[in-house]
Amino acid sequence: MHKKLFIPGPVNVSEDVLQKMATPMIGHRTKAASILQKNISEKMMQLMYTKKQIMLSTSSGSGLMEGAVRSCTRKKAAIFSIGAFGDRWYKMAISNNVPADKFSSGWGKPTTPNMVDEVLSTGKYDLITITHNETSTGVMNPIEEISEVIKKYPEVIFCLDTVSSMGGTKIEVDKLGVDICITSTQKCLGLPPGMAICSISEKAIKSAKKVENRGFYFDLLEMYKYIQNKDHQYPSTPSLSHMFALDYKLDKILEEGLENRFKRHLEMAKYVRSWAKEKFELFADEKYASNTLTTVKNIRNISVSDLNNKLAKHGYMISNGYGDLKEKTFRIAHMADTTLDQIKELLSLIDKILNI
Amino acid sequence: MHKKLFIPGPVNVSEDVLQKMATPMIGHRTKAASILQKNISEKMMQLMYTKKQIMLSTSSGSGLMEGAVRSCTRKKAAIFSIGAFGDRWYKMAISNNVPADKFSSGWGKPTTPNMVDEVLSTGKYDLITITHNETSTGVMNPIEEISEVIKKYPEVIFCLDTVSSMGGTKIEVDKLGVDICITSTQKCLGLPPGMAICSISEKAIKSAKKVENRGFYFDLLEMYKYIQNKDHQYPSTPSLSHMFALDYKLDKILEEGLENRFKRHLEMAKYVRSWAKEKFELFADEKYASNTLTTVKNIRNISVSDLNNKLAKHGYMISNGYGDLKEKTFRIAHMADTTLDQIKELLSLIDKILNI
Repeated sequence: MHKKLFIPGPVNVSEDVLQKMATPMIGHRTKAASILQKNISEKMMQLMYTKKQIMLSTSSGSGLMEGAVRSCTRKKAAIFSIGAFGDRWYKMAISNNVPADKFSSGWGKPTTPNMVDEVLSTGKYDLITITHNETSTGVMNPIEEISEVIKKYPEVIFCLDTVSSMGGTKIEVDKLGVDICITSTQKCLGLPPGMAICSISEKAIKSAKKVENRGFYFDLLEMYKYIQNKDHQYPSTPSLSHMFALDYKLDKILEEGLENRFKRHLEMAKYVRSWAKEKFELFADEKYASNTLTTVKNIRNISVSDLNNKLAKHGYMISNGYGDLKEKTFRIAHMADTTLDQIKELLSLIDKILNI
Repeated sequence: MHKKLFIPGPVNVSEDVLQKMATPMIGHRTKAASILQKNISEKMMQLMYTKKQIMLSTSSGSGLMEGAVRSCTRKKAAIFSIGAFGDRWYKMAISNNVPADKFSSGWGKPTTPNMVDEVLSTGKYDLITITHNETSTGVMNPIEEISEVIKKYPEVIFCLDTVSSMGGTKIEVDKLGVDICITSTQKCLGLPPGMAICSISEKAIKSAKKVENRGFYFDLLEMYKYIQNKDHQYPSTPSLSHMFALDYKLDKILEEGLENRFKRHLEMAKYVRSWAKEKFELFADEKYASNTLTTVKNIRNISVSDLNNKLAKHGYMISNGYGDLKEKTFRIAHMADTTLDQIKELLSLIDKILNI
């Protein structure tokens, strides 16, 4: 039943990484577990260009997104949405009684620095959430420009969703001034789903100390205290299998070299974009097209499900559009360990199937 | 670094199950993913003796415990605690602003049916949480008697923590009238940590519909709706690796035969208890001693850490006491795939090391 996945997560996981998921168990209150967490942290810090504390959560990325907005909003959160996962962050705030306002760009459009400036200048907000890479639309926000604006408001906690971009493009967490940067294993990192990862600043922790009703499992303050005081361990039993695999995979990522990895992702992105423009249209404004997945506008009115069924016979799989964009768009992920050659194979197969 | 684990989770995982953790990825929005969830559900229903909906959560058991008390308490929760994990359930309620009262038995003592009757008869509570098997003290509550009392109060949602007992002893969920029965993978089921599992009743779902502010990731109502309406899928990406392994392991458990499995656990428990009574003392009242782990009172004043270090040289590992019980007690788990012969080996090694 396994196919070559070109969907924006879960991605293909290489055999050596899968084998690390099969590592025998150890006690989660042992020195070995502490060392594992420390090793992962050090490597994640390199990948994220940060000196901040790294925390792991046995959950999908959504868990830490919920934890961030709930644990650290004192007054009100400004949620900037450019699609399904921005909308989800707003839903997380509301369903936790966290005061929040949502500022949406049209689907396929980015958050602009001006929008952010206008909203934060009201002084009403002490936390902001930005989607770096929107998995539903294939838009990658202009994060450097946005972060320059956010820096003008030092009291604001800056939360960034890099679930579908971290490891696929350069995100310099400390330089950007991100307080809580969130990602998860099943996208550009090339691991199975089941673990979320974040970096967290002292500023965010200070803020959490002033927030009550932070809940239990995703209480970022409690998690932080545990890591600091209990020798890098966690309040509840973590997914050790994911930790073994992540520890190993980060070595592989650093061996490839971060710049090489980002270059490979960019080359794949450029190739898919140019194909999309020739044969269809890009859904996102090209200036903001994602380096890790491309959302293609279905101007030919093909049946995407039908295309995927035909691809399946050759062992390939792409993604239909997300939610309301189903059949109106389709998505091709170019992330994790995928190579340009594999992308070329896929696209020429699509050309053949569609006879385009 | 791998040792033979006699700690109450993570447990040893057999090589064939570990290999299932290394299964290649599939899309989590595919038919294959739906079938996987359905297959797991059907087998879990057999193991739990229930016809209720099964739900999986990519988290530790704590996640679903938090989700249950938060999603389904309308008026007030009565939290019965017999140790660390009962106390944790109370903390979960409080940290989510869920009105709750805690009713503690002394550590090593059970919750009594009388206590429950007295509390519920006040009419103040519409949800009750009971720890079936307290991992910190080795007490297994008299769940049949307790459930008879709870049945007198049909408006009360009955939540049961079977994290360290499900799969190791018979727990007939429907017969007991449990509304939300929670367990996780890394104890008696013999899988790596990282996934929690629950059964949920229509009554609990009806109750959740009346509760606002249920949060996002552990909102049991949202999870339930997704499974029902979206062809057995989940709001966020689940840990597919755990699902592959769980699906396989449940076959193995059913092949062993549930009665055989429970009998094996009971035999190991009896052997450890009789050893403990001969060489030390039982921490729990023997009438309520757990079938899946034994907490031993350290009346000889040995150094438990030292014992564990010496055991480590032979490749074995037991647990020190939990929290304040550290060095005052130690814990030997006899759960999952452990055999009576392995237990005998361990105990005779301890005898040799301690010269007792």
